[in-house]
This record gives sequence, structure tokens and C-alpha cells, in this order.
Amino acid sequence: MIRVGVIAAVGYAGRELLRLAVSHPEIKITAAVELEAGKKLADAMPSFAKVLDIELETFDPDSLAKKCDVVFLALHGGKGIPIVAALRSAGVRVIDMGPDFRIKDSQLFQKYYGVEHTATELLKEAVYGLVPYYRESIREAQLVAVPGCYPISVILPLRPLNEFLEGVVIADCISGVSGAGRALSEPLHYPEMNENVRAYKLGIHQHIPEIEQETGNRFMVQFTPHVGPYTRGILSTITARPKGDVDVAKAYNRYGQEPFVRVYAEGKLPELRFVRASNFCDIGWAMDRRTGNLIIVSAIDNLLGGTAGMAMQCFNVMFGFDERTALRFGGMVP
Amino acid sequence: MIRVGVIAAVGYAGRELLRLAVSHPEIKITAAVELEAGKKLADAMPSFAKVLDIELETFDPDSLAKKCDVVFLALHGGKGIPIVAALRSAGVRVIDMGPDFRIKDSQLFQKYYGVEHTATELLKEAVYGLVPYYRESIREAQLVAVPGCYPISVILPLRPLNEFLEGVVIADCISGVSGAGRALSEPLHYPEMNENVRAYKLGIHQHIPEIEQETGNRFMVQFTPHVGPYTRGILSTITARPKGDVDVAKAYNRYGQEPFVRVYAEGKLPELRFVRASNFCDIGWAMDRRTGNLIIVSAIDNLLGGTAGMAMQCFNVMFGFDERTALRFGGMVP
Amino acid sequence: MIRVGVIAAVGYAGRELLRLAVSHPEIKITAAVELEAGKKLADAMPSFAKVLDIELETFDPDSLAKKCDVVFLALHGGKGIPIVAALRSAGVRVIDMGPDFRIKDSQLFQKYYGVEHTATELLKEAVYGLVPYYRESIREAQLVAVPGCYPISVILPLRPLNEFLEGVVIADCISGVSGAGRALSEPLHYPEMNENVRAYKLGIHQHIPEIEQETGNRFMVQFTPHVGPYTRGILSTITARPKGDVDVAKAYNRYGQEPFVRVYAEGKLPELRFVRASNFCDIGWAMDRRTGNLIIVSAIDNLLGGTAGMAMQCFNVMFGFDERTALRFGGMVP
Amino acid sequence: MIRVGVIAAVGYAGRELLRLAVSHPEIKITAAVELEAGKKLADAMPSFAKVLDIELETFDPDSLAKKCDVVFLALHGGKGIPIVAALRSAGVRVIDMGPDFRIKDSQLFQKYYGVEHTATELLKEAVYGLVPYYRESIREAQLVAVPGCYPISVILPLRPLNEFLEGVVIADCISGVSGAGRALSEPLHYPEMNENVRAYKLGIHQHIPEIEQETGNRFMVQFTPHVGPYTRGILSTITARPKGDVDVAKAYNRYGQEPFVRVYAEGKLPELRFVRASNFCDIGWAMDRRTGNLIIVSAIDNLLGGTAGMAMQCFNVMFGFDERTALRFGGMVP
Repeated sequence: MIRVGVIAAVGYAGRELLRLAVSHPEIKITAAVELEAGKKLADAMPSFAKVLDIELETFDPDSLAKKCDVVFLALHGGKGIPIVAALRSAGVRVIDMGPDFRIKDSQLFQKYYGVEHTATELLKEAVYGLVPYYRESIREAQLVAVPGCYPISVILPLRPLNEFLEGVVIADCISGVSGAGRALSEPLHYPEMNENVRAYKLGIHQHIPEIEQETGNRFMVQFTPHVGPYTRGILSTITARPKGDVDVAKAYNRYGQEPFVRVYAEGKLPELRFVRASNFCDIGWAMDRRTGNLIIVSAIDNLLGGTAGMAMQCFNVMFGFDERTALRFGGMVP
Repeated sequence: MIRVGVIAAVGYAGRELLRLAVSHPEIKITAAVELEAGKKLADAMPSFAKVLDIELETFDPDSLAKKCDVVFLALHGGKGIPIVAALRSAGVRVIDMGPDFRIKDSQLFQKYYGVEHTATELLKEAVYGLVPYYRESIREAQLVAVPGCYPISVILPLRPLNEFLEGVVIADCISGVSGAGRALSEPLHYPEMNENVRAYKLGIHQHIPEIEQETGNRFMVQFTPHVGPYTRGILSTITARPKGDVDVAKAYNRYGQEPFVRVYAEGKLPELRFVRASNFCDIGWAMDRRTGNLIIVSAIDNLLGGTAGMAMQCFNVMFGFDERTALRFGGMVP
Repeated sequence: MIRVGVIAAVGYAGRELLRLAVSHPEIKITAAVELEAGKKLADAMPSFAKVLDIELETFDPDSLAKKCDVVFLALHGGKGIPIVAALRSAGVRVIDMGPDFRIKDSQLFQKYYGVEHTATELLKEAVYGLVPYYRESIREAQLVAVPGCYPISVILPLRPLNEFLEGVVIADCISGVSGAGRALSEPLHYPEMNENVRAYKLGIHQHIPEIEQETGNRFMVQFTPHVGPYTRGILSTITARPKGDVDVAKAYNRYGQEPFVRVYAEGKLPELRFVRASNFCDIGWAMDRRTGNLIIVSAIDNLLGGTAGMAMQCFNVMFGFDERTALRFGGMVP
Repeated sequence: MIRVGVIAAVGYAGRELLRLAVSHPEIKITAAVELEAGKKLADAMPSFAKVLDIELETFDPDSLAKKCDVVFLALHGGKGIPIVAALRSAGVRVIDMGPDFRIKDSQLFQKYYGVEHTATELLKEAVYGLVPYYRESIREAQLVAVPGCYPISVILPLRPLNEFLEGVVIADCISGVSGAGRALSEPLHYPEMNENVRAYKLGIHQHIPEIEQETGNRFMVQFTPHVGPYTRGILSTITARPKGDVDVAKAYNRYGQEPFVRVYAEGKLPELRFVRASNFCDIGWAMDRRTGNLIIVSAIDNLLGGTAGMAMQCFNVMFGFDERTALRFGGMVP
């Protein structure tokens, strides 16, 4: 049994990771760190009653080092840096679902997150946890930076096509509201957000440098995120103008053996319902011969395939389990 | 490995059962029966791609008897009778998620379902699959009639209080739209149902005799079902006037050891979110001293704790597995 | 032209009143009071750009008295008392969409709202603004207390039946989230409330004394409010046991001439969609001969027929306009 | 009073037009044509009870000519052609909310709608009912072709920038489900569509030639429509690469006097909630200096500003009323 701790256990990513972890036959959850320390997890989150009997505790790296083989965390930009540094100093393997160790260029990190990176030596050690591309490095990694939800939905469809693209690729993406996390705000108050759609952070979203880094900085990405009136899921619509002929189906053959990437036949398009509550990234595409554009649509569940599911897949790779352990379920429809 | 077949595999109950079954370590899915016979399951339901590679087939009881140890089904009232009869004749154990073998009185069945019951001898054999009350009989059962979704949400909170109640108990329940199944209709067309709530089938709903049978016919149940603008979950609000004093908390102690029933402290109330995508039935209650009424609120996920989850729990009991196998997850919040 | 002011202009009731008022041919909006004083209304609420060009101002009763013939307000329990008192002292007619002048018994007000009533003399003057029952008094009223949303949905269907009922009447009601107003809270954060239903305030809700007062204190009302995952609308399901025979259709004949109450034929039930964005209260009912219970279902749009629409209807009565002015539209479906 | 008839009166566009028309002080609704002829409108659509007392009738152009000054209709591609032809022969003015007279090139019409155009002479007569651009022609028009919902949301933001754009402009649009109308289908069944988003008709949508015609065929439009889990509203996100410098704010100055177009300050973005249930088209934009792209976001209510509201504005122009008559309300928030 692998002893697992979770920091920010009641945050949306932490909750989801714990929800998965209880059904993993090789995981023993030994620590749950949260601000409401002293409370039972099930008192903070009634969904865990009779599921996981654990007391929330404050952050203590030495204590965690003693009782955990690996610690997952998910904190806002910059907040995770000292936590991860302390955990690594104490010798714990870390799977970071937050953004702090994804961007290799600390200048870019500072520019987009508005926070100085104070653990740049760990940036070198960190492995980007996009399993289909970094499987081998993840196996031995001491620190895994799980990709962002939007980046997963954009990088997986684009990266096999890197060599065929140039200029500016348009990524118009829409996310369910859970992507914004637990923090209250007027625009996310139910009566304001229900039946509403909006775009936000045009041209300045912090996922831009992550996407461009992981597509090889071969083209710019015009990333326009939207939020829509539903809880889970990201649908990304990507429009690109290929240079010359590109055999898209062939480029996607690399995903044939991936357990959680599904590529549709040309012209068939994914929908959120088919990936809901699952770890899958579904990819569909069509060539528009009239305009010369390639349009790709991808779908993930932002909290699973986009966060906690990808993190669990990383965990399975790191500890030598079948990658599908605790992740076997398909989309929940309806 | 237990070899499992599912009839009406693409219906909402069948899909959900299959979704659970793929993560059960002791299940091998050997047959999926559906009208679209000849198609791959994943072609009918893209959510199963890379999850379950099986071809849909037509109903053939002998073929199913050869390759299945147990068959699940979920058909509309009356449609399951000949199917179950044929399966039982062929010697297969059956877990029926439909309504055909729940009501012991075939006259009542005919009255509420409008169909004559043509297999009354099987009614005697059938065990009502409400695990907390029929666990021992389920263990040896050849035919299990999984309770209806509304009945589960009403019987579980009421049955421990049977002896304290009389007269008419009011059960106002609201279900998500998935409870109505896959069949298209104008009132369930998205733009009509979204942002809508309605009551329906006042005084004539087919779940009335099932609820009254399983609460011992000690009181009548005024059952008023509603449908609301969401996909999953039943919240049942039950108002009853106890005769004399009743120690509600004590009466509910019987659920202390139940893996999937959670009783809240007095005055705390369950919500759909805490049971979503889980097998739990959560129960809360309050005594209103002003009016003398006891108000009980229960919450289930109608497709899980209300159908496929309860069916899977029956399966686990029948085949001697830990009841929580493939059902370990708590509510999915958000 | 009647000169109208609105206090709490950006609150959900205030906004809705303003939205209606701009299409009223005899209204000139002369004041909008809100905390964001100094801002343009359209800067606080972009929906009003090119619709209503007015600057938000702070509360000044003398200033309002000079420029308004009538002032609408909607504040939380107790907050409106000094405001209304000041306005009345300044001689302005007031239409209060808040709860402060609905309950005639100041002891009951204090018990349920937790606030002492400091203007009991105005309680005597205040007219309860339920148009079908107080039309004549409203005509001359200086202070109208617009009924609460839940009370409207329960009183309108019950009051014609007052003489036939006794004991405890059960009112299980479900409201859209807008009923809770603008204030942020974790349970109303979009990802928590979406796909969720819950009951709340069992036996202690502040609308109980209002409902019982206006149904003549002939029976108690077991009022159980719920909130569901949609923005607007209240569906109330009322279960009562009539003494002796009652000709329900005949009792409801009194609504035949009411412009905004629609009674359905026996067995036909209203739905939120048919009243959405309208001022109607729709009423349906069925007698369950098996149990002897009468079940009534009513539907309103809580912000219109339940608040601002009823307030506008009061206004039309007070100033002698056709009651339907600015309220002519039927339900918005879809 | 102008005498108005509506064909397809219970369709989503027809209903909405009628809902508006009842509050128009100069309209008398004299005919409602629908398949359920013989029924009262309110029996087909309970939302119209006590609002509009009219009997549905079958289509008879001569009868309509006698009792209507103008007829509105909304039928699927091609179905409206003979109807409009008959009405025009009978001398009635027509406002067609369907697609049959929008595209001037009958070859293109046939290519995208799959139907031959059998009234090409009426194509010449028809005026495209986009009020800000065709106000003068609409005034005298005998046949107005109201623009499509998506086209309105794309043409209004693009047309002032026509001269600055070239190549391919990307329009990723998302519509509420009401845009698909009343016809039942599995993907629009509530439990399938709720919490779902999908793209559809990539590169082949019938609104492409309409958009390109009305932006002067100066650039191609890569139009990618999506449908999201809500009832009303289109949010269009348009990405374009201007040639040289463009003063966007200045180009949009033309909308300063338009009653129903609102342009936001640079960087401010519209949301569906601000236009919900209103006739407005809101436009926001930002220049992304990093990529050189201009991103424009527009929001409309597809059934109002996108259909029936625009049709009513056309009507007001045709008959000399204030354009805002029956359309004065701002967005309904919440």
C-alpha cells in the first residue's frame, strides 16, 4: 500500500483526488491537510461520511514525510512553491496539481502569475505530468507538475501536429464553472452564472505560456477561455491553417495505445457528455476545404482528465500500477 | 470471475450498471443485449470506447444462459416479464432493475401498470432487493427485483418508523430528468424542461403500491412526484404525524452499520450534491413542535443508489463480495 | 406621469421593478437609491445601458419626497423599517417589497425575523398588497406591503378554500435560487448549487406567520421550502384534507375575473415554464379519492408574480391604471 | 391598429413574436396559423391563457389577406417559399423570420439548404431585415427577410470593420438549445443535453453564405457553431487579423445612435445575462498585441435580438412606430 497525503483536501481538485483515491486498491490515505484542521473531513464535506474517516490537519512537512510516500497538492499560483520546497526537503515525492512547477521559464511564470518563483532549482527537477508525452520521466520523478486543465485539452490535440502548424493557432475553449474553484464571487453566484456564458482574460490567461511551451513554441496560441453554465468539462475548439498537406489521422495514430485518449473518425466530434466524470480526452477534427482550415475539437472533464484523473494516472505510473487503476470508468451519460 | 450479461444495455439503467461493472474486479461482462444488435456498444455510446469492447446482441435466453452467471435487465412495466421468465427457465440468475417483480400482489401490479402479470409463480420466488432489509434472502436469490428509485428514497427513511406512524404520510419527491429514461417527449425536450419544475401522476403513480407494501401497509402514502431541471438525484420530503413520542434517532440506529445509508444529526439535512454519483441514501429529519409533525428528507442518486448501485450491491451480496466493491466512491461534489 | 423612485435598485427585486417600469407608459423613473451611489445604474448593471440613464444616489427622504410620487423598496427583514418611516414622514407613498410591514402582529414579526418592530403605528396603516383580496384598500393606501413570494404561491390557492380546511396543511415549495437574493454564500456558489436540491429552515421560516395570517389562522401550515437548480420560479405543492365535500372548482370561481390568476381544469397541473417571466399565478388541483386528500399545485415567477410584478400591479391599482399595464406578457416559453 | 397574423404561431419564433405583440399598443393580433388548427392558442400553449384569446387556424392566404395588414412567419428552410409567395400574391406585407429570402444568390441557397428556390423573383424584392443597415429599405418593404440569429451576432460586430479585414475570420459561436427549435431529437433530450457542450456542422452550416453576403464577401468566415446547456442566447467570439492599424472604437461609433446595439469600452466583454430576454446586441473587443489579433465578443438573445425582437423592430420601422415599441426592456438579470 502506498501512503498518500493530500494538501488542500477540500478544494475542488483535492476532493476529487480523494474521491478517486478511496477506490484505489493500493492507496492508503494517511493525511488530509486543510485550513479547517481539527475537523473530520466528513464534517467539512458530508459526501465523505462512511467513505473516508480522517481528521484534517495543518501543514507540517516533517509529519507528512513520516506518514506519506507521496503528497498531492493543489494551490493557487505561487502558494504551492514553499509547500513543495518544504516537502521535497523532507524527502517526500510530490504530485502538484497547481501551476507552480509547470512553466520552465521562471520569467514567464512571474509575468503571467504575478509572483516571483522562489524555487527555480525545483523547476529543473519537476517533470511535466502529461502522461502520453512524459511517461518515462514520470516513472522516476520526485516532483510531478500536473498540467493545467485547459492546457491538457489544447496540447493533446495539437502536439501531434506541431510540425504542420505555424503562425497563430486559435483556441476557443469553454469550461464549466468548477474550473474557477471554490472561491465565491458575484459572477459565479448561481443566479448570475446560470444561463450565462462569457469570455474572460483575453490574451493574458496564465495558461498561454504553458500551452506554447508544450507545443514546442512553434506557433503562437490565441487562447480565448470562456465559462459556461454547467459544472464540469472543457470543450476546446482549435482552428489552425496547416502548411501543406497533413495526414491528421496518421498524426493521431500515436494515441492508438493511450488508455485515456480517444481520437474520433474524421468529421465525428466529441461532446462533454462522453467524457463526463471520466479521465478521457476525446479528440475530433474536420478539414474545411473551402477555407483551408483544420478544426479540432477536444473534450475533457476538467476535474478528472483535466486535474485529479491525470494526477492519479501520474501516480499509477510513478508507483508501477496499471495506469487505469481507479480510473476505469467511461463517461457518465447521463 | 462472475460472467455478467446486461439487457437493455444502452438504457439509462443498463448504461450505468455497465459503467460500474467495468471497475468491479470480479466481473467479466460477457453479453450486452440491445435493439441496436450488431453494433459495437461504443458505436451506440461513445462513452464506452476504450472502456468496454463488446458487441450488442439480440435477446437469446439459451445463449445468455451459456455465457452468463447472472443477467441484469431494466425494461418498462410488463416488458420484462417474458424475458425474466425465459431467463429463469434457462437457469440464469436474474437481477431485474425494472418494476415487474417488485409488487407481490399481481392485482395491484395490473391496476397500476395496466398490464396483466403472466408470471405470478416467479413473483413468489422474487426477492425484493432492498439490501438493508433483505440481505439474507438476496444471498441465495435466483431472481432479485431491485426496488424503484422513488421507493428507495421513501422506504429507507420510513420503515424504521413504521410502528410510530398511521393515517396518511405525505411524500413530496422531486427527481432529476434521467428518471424518465431515454424516451423522447415534448415536456423533456431541453428548452421545455430547463428552468422548469412540474408535479405529475398525482395519486396514480405506480410506485405507490410498492412503497406501501414495503412499509408494511400500516399507513397510506400520499406520493406526489415532481421532476426538476437537473439530470440526477431524488430528494424526498416526507411529512408524518407520529402517534405519541418517537425517538427518531434511536429508530435510525439500525442504519449505523449499513455501508450506504447515512443518517444526519437532528436538524441537519441532506442535499443531492452529497450523494451525486454515489450509492448512498442520506437521511435527515426535524421535529416541528409547533405542528407536531415529523419532517424527513432523504437524498439519493436515482441512477445509482436508486437503481444500478443498489443492483450492484445486490450482486455483491449474491456472489459473496464485499458490498462496497465497485461502489466505494462518495458523492461527487461538484 | 407618475414619478417613481426605487431603493435597493440593484437588488434582485429592485432591478426587476426597474426593468418593468421602463416599459410602463405612465412612469417616469426619477430616483434610484443604492450603495454604489455616484455610479450610473448602467455601470453597476450593464443590462440597463441604453435603457435607463440614471445616477445611483444615497438615501435622502426629503430629496425623494420632492421628486417622487411613490417609492418602491426591497430590503432584508427589519432594514426597511426606518426607511419606510422616514419616507412616510416625508409624505411619500411607499410600496415595500420587503417583509417589514406584512405581519400585523409585531410580536410574531420579532419572533420570526429576530428584529424588534420600531414602527408599529405604520403596521396599522400598511395594506397587504395581495391585489385579488385587498384591491379596494390598495387604491387609497399610503403604504403597501407587497406579499412575500412563497406566501403568494400558497395563499392564492388556499384562501378560497379556507372554510373547508382545518388541522395542518402541508405546503412543500421549491424556489429558484434568485429567491435568496444577491448575497454570496457557499451553498449558492454555482458549482455547489447546480444539479442540487435541498430543503431548509424547516419549521422556522419567516413566511409561516404571513401565510397563516392571510389564510385566516384557521389551520396551521407546515411550510417546507426547498431551493432547486434554476433561477426563477416557485412551485408549491399543497396537501390538505378537506372537511366534508368541497367543490373546489366552484371555490376557485372567484378568480375568474382576476387578470393574473389562472385556474386549471381538475387534474391539469401548472408548470414553471408557463408563468416564467410573467405576473401570473397558475393553480391546478386534484382530489385523491384513495387518501381523501386534496392536492393543489401553484406556480409563479418569484421575481415577477412573486415580487416586482405584484408590486407593479399594486402601483397600477394605486394610481388608477389598467392593472395589466407593463405586465401584459404571458409566460416566456422557452 | 395594425392587424397582425402569425404563421407557425406555436413554434419558438412564433410564440416569442406573439408574446411581444400582446404588449404592443398598436397591434391587434387577428390570426394565428398552426398545425393544431381548431384549438385555442392557450390550449396548445398554456402560457397564453388570459393573455391572448385566439383560435388557431389553417393557412389560407386569402383569408389572411382580408384580416391582416402584415403576416409574420418562421418555417424551416424552403418551407416558407410557397407560403410567402401566396401571401405576396394576395397583397399582404410579410415579415419572414425563416431563412428563405435572406440569401440573394439562389444557387448558394440551394447548396446550403438543399432545396431549390422557387420564388427567385421575390428574392429581388425581399429586404434583409437588419435594421441598422437597411432601415430605409425596410420602411417601404413588402417582404422583409429577418436575419438569422447567428448572422446577427456575427454581422453586427464585423460589418463596421469590413474594410480592415481580409483572409479568413474565425467565428466560434455558442447558442442556447432553443436555437434548434421544437423538434425532438436524442441529442436535445434533457438528460443528454444538460451539462453538455458540442460543436456541430463544421464548415457546412447554412448561415455561412448569409454572413459572408452581409459582410460584403470581403473575407471568408470560418463559422463554428456550438450548442451549450442553456435555453437562450448566442455568444459569438470572433478572431480576426486586421490589416494595418484599425481604430476599432471609431469604427463602432456608427452604433452610437442605434437603440439596440451597445458597444463596450475596450477590454470590457458582454455576457449573455446582460442581453437575456431583450432585443440588444452587445459588443466588446480587445486587441491582443502579442499575436496581432483582434478579438470581438458579441451577445444576443437568439429568440429576441436574434429573431422575434429584430422582427418586431422591423415591424416598427415598416409601420412608422418608435423602434423601441414593445421592446423597451433591458436584459433580465437574473
